[in-house]
Order: sequence, then C-alpha cells, then structure tokens
Amino acid sequence: MKELVLGIDIGGTNTDFGLVDNEGRIWARGHLDTRQYPTAKGFVSALAEVVAKLLQKDKDFKMRGVGVGVPNANPFTGIVEDPPNLPWKGKVALRELLADQLQVPAEISNDANAAAMGELLYGVGASKNFVVITLGTGIGAGIVADGVLLQGRDGLAGEIGHVIAIADGRLCNCGRKGCFERYASATGLKETMHELLSRPGARSVLSGSDPRNLSSKQIFDAAASGDVLALEAFDYTARIIGKVLADVAAILSPEKFYFLGGLANAGEMLLRPAKKYFERDLLFIHHNKISFEISSLKDREAAILGSAALLWHKLGK
Amino acid sequence: MKELVLGIDIGGTNTDFGLVDNEGRIWARGHLDTRQYPTAKGFVSALAEVVAKLLQKDKDFKMRGVGVGVPNANPFTGIVEDPPNLPWKGKVALRELLADQLQVPAEISNDANAAAMGELLYGVGASKNFVVITLGTGIGAGIVADGVLLQGRDGLAGEIGHVIAIADGRLCNCGRKGCFERYASATGLKETMHELLSRPGARSVLSGSDPRNLSSKQIFDAAASGDVLALEAFDYTARIIGKVLADVAAILSPEKFYFLGGLANAGEMLLRPAKKYFERDLLFIHHNKISFEISSLKDREAAILGSAALLWHKLGK
Repeated sequence: MKELVLGIDIGGTNTDFGLVDNEGRIWARGHLDTRQYPTAKGFVSALAEVVAKLLQKDKDFKMRGVGVGVPNANPFTGIVEDPPNLPWKGKVALRELLADQLQVPAEISNDANAAAMGELLYGVGASKNFVVITLGTGIGAGIVADGVLLQGRDGLAGEIGHVIAIADGRLCNCGRKGCFERYASATGLKETMHELLSRPGARSVLSGSDPRNLSSKQIFDAAASGDVLALEAFDYTARIIGKVLADVAAILSPEKFYFLGGLANAGEMLLRPAKKYFERDLLFIHHNKISFEISSLKDREAAILGSAALLWHKLGK
Repeated sequence: MKELVLGIDIGGTNTDFGLVDNEGRIWARGHLDTRQYPTAKGFVSALAEVVAKLLQKDKDFKMRGVGVGVPNANPFTGIVEDPPNLPWKGKVALRELLADQLQVPAEISNDANAAAMGELLYGVGASKNFVVITLGTGIGAGIVADGVLLQGRDGLAGEIGHVIAIADGRLCNCGRKGCFERYASATGLKETMHELLSRPGARSVLSGSDPRNLSSKQIFDAAASGDVLALEAFDYTARIIGKVLADVAAILSPEKFYFLGGLANAGEMLLRPAKKYFERDLLFIHHNKISFEISSLKDREAAILGSAALLWHKLGK
C-alpha cells in the first residue's frame, strides 16, 4: 500500500496537483485550467474525476487526504474569501467541498504557509526557525518558529507584504501607502524599472519598451547583460528587502530566510545585494547569523509539495 | 505541602523576588540592593541566605525551582552577557550559579519574555496569541503564538525596540538610527519633550526645567493638566507606537497587545491615541480585531510572577 496525499496549488490561471508520499516524492501529477470553472463546485467535481484516474494507475495507491495552497485561505474555517484572480466570488467553503467530494480529510492554507510547511517537512537541512518569503505578483510569508507554523489568531499571520517599507510610498491595493510588496515583488520591480526609465535622459536597453508589458524576466536579462538602469532596479529592490527583513529578524530571530516565487528566480542577482543591505541594516546581535537561501524545494514542485505537507503534517508524518 | 517557585526580577538598582505558587499567589517576598554585589557569585550567595529564611517561615513551603527575568538573558545557554546597568561584566552563567546554590532547577529569560509567560499563566482572560510590550528605559517584547513563547533561533526574538520606526532617525545605543525604543520608551518620550521645548517660542509648564532631569512622570503630569506641548509629546509617541505595532500585527496577527513598564503607567493618555493611530495604519483584515490593554498582572508584581512563570511553565503547570 502506497499512502499518498493530494497536494493542490490553485492559481488564477493554472491549477497543478500531485499525489505525494510522506517523504516528498510525487507519484502522479495532473493539471486543470482554473479559468474553465466559474464555480468552485464545478472545479472540485472536475478535479475528482482526474484524481480518480490518477489513483487507478496503481492499485497500491491509497489517498489519505488532500492539502491545498490558495490565496486568502483561512486554515481555521476552511473558507477562501474573495480569492483575488480566481473566478469564484464571495466565501467559498473549499475545505468542506473537497472533503465531501473526495471523502478524505482536507486542509487549506495560503500559498506562503503551504510553502513553509513544505520546507519544514521536505526541505534540505531545514531549520526549525525560518521564514519562507514568496516574491510573486505580491509578497507572502510563512513563518516557522520552533518547528511550528505561526498562524496568529486567525491563520492570517505572515502578511509581510503589507509591512510599510517606505513611509508615504507607492499606493497599494490594500489602500495604504508604501507596502513592502509594492517594491519587492515582481510587480514592484517592474514599477521601479518604469520609474527609472521615466527619468529625463535615462538610457537602457529597455528604453522605448512599453512599461505595461515589461516583464521581470526582461529586467533580469537586461541586468545580466550589464544594463546600468536594470541593475539599479535590482539594487533598489534589494535595498528594500534588506531593510524590511532586518526588522522582521529583530522580531522573529530566525535562522534562515528562504525565497520562492517568480522574482526569486533572479537568484544571486537579487539575493547577494539584498543580503548585503540586510547585514548593514541588521541589529548587531544577528550579524552573520541569518542566511538567505533559495528554497530547497524545486521551484515548480514547491507549491504541490507544500500543499501536501499541510495534510501530512496533520497526519503526524 | 505548599509547592512554590522563586521568581526573581533583577534590575540595575533593585532585585525583587517572591515565592509564587502555581496559581500566581505570592506567599513571601524579599529584596536585595543589586549594586551591593560586584559579582554574580556574591549576589547569588546573599540571595540564598534570604531565601532560606523565607522558606523557614512555614514548614509546608517547598521550593520547586527558580525563574529569573533579567536583561540580555539567553534562555538556551543560561548565560547573561554584559547585562546593561548591572555591576556584573562579561558572560555570567547565572542559571548554573542559581541551580548550584539553591539545588533546584533554574530558568532565565529576558524581562519581556518573562512578562509574557506571566501573562499566559496568570493573566486575566489571557489569549493564546498576544504580545507583551515593555515600555521602560528601552522597549522589549515577549511574543506568545498559539500558547507558546516565541524564542527564535537563539532565544532573542522579540527585539521590537530595535525595529526601525523612523528612517535615519535618532541615534540608538545599538549604533543604528531610528529604532522604535528611541521614540516610544520613557527615554524616547523625554527626548521628544526636550525637542519640543527647544523649538523657538515653545511654551509649556515644563519650559525652563533642565531637560536632562525631566522625568516621564513630569511629562505625564503636565499633559494631564492640559499642557499643549506635553500632550503633543504623548501624541507623537502614540503615533510611532501605532505605526510600528501595525507592522508587527501584519507579521504576527495577534489578538492583543499588553503594555507594561514605566511608560505604560500613563495608561489611556498613551494607549487611546496609540490605538487610534494603530487602527489608521493597520492592514484592513485586522481592523477592530486587536486590542490594546495594560497588562492584567499588577504592575509591581508582574516581573516576579513572570519570572516564576518561566519555571512553572517548564514544570508543566
């Protein structure tokens, strides 16, 4: 008997899932186009069909449960509320829908918390005090303290993306100004590049490109080729990451920060200067004691592993 | 048999201690003048003598252990390193000294962490997700997440006093600029008042007083009597508390902030405006869900109760 947990990563465009064993091996994978399902109920029905087929591949497969990483998920109530970028509106009782349809226990959490659980259970050299930072369209964080996921009173701890990085800075979707994610997410990097390109006399290989269509990959490529303005955009982003995480370190005293998500693909281009500014801004008791690392989970699989880890953890793996 | 834990609050001037039962009642109290003991060894010997006498008061008394709240204490190693304001220099193995001398288990932690444990074990209506903020000469914090004290990799979590509140702000003892404790501690309030009094044409009942001798109590009294400048000093302090704790709330999602220490004695004079600015600066998901309260432990006894709680917690009270 091969006991497996279904790990699901629900995104606005793609939903990826896999059957994961308790050591983090993925035995089967599947995919749905999230946009094809205007209701969560229809989505869960379609998912159940595909999963049933995956389970038939090997008669030894036994599904013990399902874990989901999805934005705006409340792990205590099992409800996803007004998920941004998803077709479903209002309060969606996703945990209940999944448990009913698949007839196994289900857990849901936001993607950063799922990533932190994945790092804890399946990570290489995982410590017991770390923070996983997801640098995507926005910024999230999953905090592990003494081997336990820090959830706060409502499961909504870790909203590091909404720490104020710059007083009276850029307007955020949350209605406030200067949030960390307006600077250090992929979206933030693009806005910084746009600002730099708008300077009088700015010269860059990206000059003349439509700023609305600029991708963080294009900025990375420009920086890698030595473009001064693109390098400046990364330096500015790194400066803000260093500053905010120095504050986070004073509060949490972690051993490691792990980075995940689109912008984390920039690797050393971002992390090396970010670490430099972090050490500069850090309280002396922490100097040279906290590392910056790219998540040890393979990038494409991190979300599936993390989601499965939510339930494996509950099963007492 | 009355089982008791010795709770000790070591300060630069006074050391207060008491024998505390597992429900937070203090059965006997004692006191030492910290400055009379140039070495920790001499201090612990003198302490043992006084404690022996306290224990003889009732033949039913049985001491189960000792807990100490002291600045710069590392709960993992049991060492106090270069404690500020204490006569002892270098690394002091205080936990070992106490356990040897008193022949019972000992625990040490910094004062804010001890206060948080006291609130958790003995507090009125204690939640499982809260932060105790000590507003004294400096600022400390003890963080409790899901009923567990958050210690970080080295027991040094909770250094909220060294979150940067104002970019390029006042110089801090830590060597950096703009730390929260340079603004929102008793010391910070005095510096703010001094700055306001230095403005051209400033008029206050405190005008003409030597700023070096100004106490936070004097500023409180002036504000209570309606002095506009003193009220402005409190308002500025509250603004900074609101701003920094809004960031802390985004990271930790607590249910409550408890305040302790000299400046917390200002009560509503400080907490009402601080809460107002906090709500203004807060991420919307937390609006009106996090309370500001003065610690429910009586102010004079909070440190002794908290120190005793460190050990009662370990004994599995």
